[in-house]
Amino acid sequence: MSFLSHLESVVRDVDGSIACSVMGFDGIAVETYQAQDAGELELSSAWVEYANLLTQLKNAADLLKTGSVSEVSINTEKVMTLIRMVSPDYFVVLALRPEGNYGKARYVLRVTAPKIRAEL
Amino acid sequence: MSFLSHLESVVRDVDGSIACSVMGFDGIAVETYQAQDAGELELSSAWVEYANLLTQLKNAADLLKTGSVSEVSINTEKVMTLIRMVSPDYFVVLALRPEGNYGKARYVLRVTAPKIRAEL
Repeated sequence: MSFLSHLESVVRDVDGSIACSVMGFDGIAVETYQAQDAGELELSSAWVEYANLLTQLKNAADLLKTGSVSEVSINTEKVMTLIRMVSPDYFVVLALRPEGNYGKARYVLRVTAPKIRAEL
Repeated sequence: MSFLSHLESVVRDVDGSIACSVMGFDGIAVETYQAQDAGELELSSAWVEYANLLTQLKNAADLLKTGSVSEVSINTEKVMTLIRMVSPDYFVVLALRPEGNYGKARYVLRVTAPKIRAEL
């Protein structure tokens, strides 16, 4: 389970990233990489939103488990979260600031999910 | 209830739009405006995906009803859907092709939702 480097790559490659996590469908975060390139004060409010969203992910995860849906995104005014299935038990979630590059985020998560799956 | 013109404006203003609907949280579409600027053949597969997604919206709608979430997006490889609450009983949903302008879509739905609410 050395997927922390994959999470780091996602955060580095996507402008506006706050954090990237691997989570189980039970709602428990397995691993998280937080962006280093922004001030703590700037990140803190977005980070609080991210943590709040993680607690609401059960419904979104249920959608992913249907199989026909490839991504789910849950957005507040302060943070966007993009979620992609990794395996039947795990998914990856990326938090972005509202001005972040959502299109790049979709691409990077799509190519990274199989790499994380290979490490599980 | 003359909000069809608002739905038309959304579809016209956002590149890659397929259709925009006002739906009740009971899952019934009240009104839909479909894009006119693309060939039927190009739209048809995306339209089928959109219809499929509409049947899966119940979980996403539950998230919106928590109040802390302002938008939910559910994406397949063929279509992205962006959802925003309009009132306690209704939400607006926009379907985009995967190459559509998601950032513009977020902005346009944010400013349009209050206009639709005023017409309900």
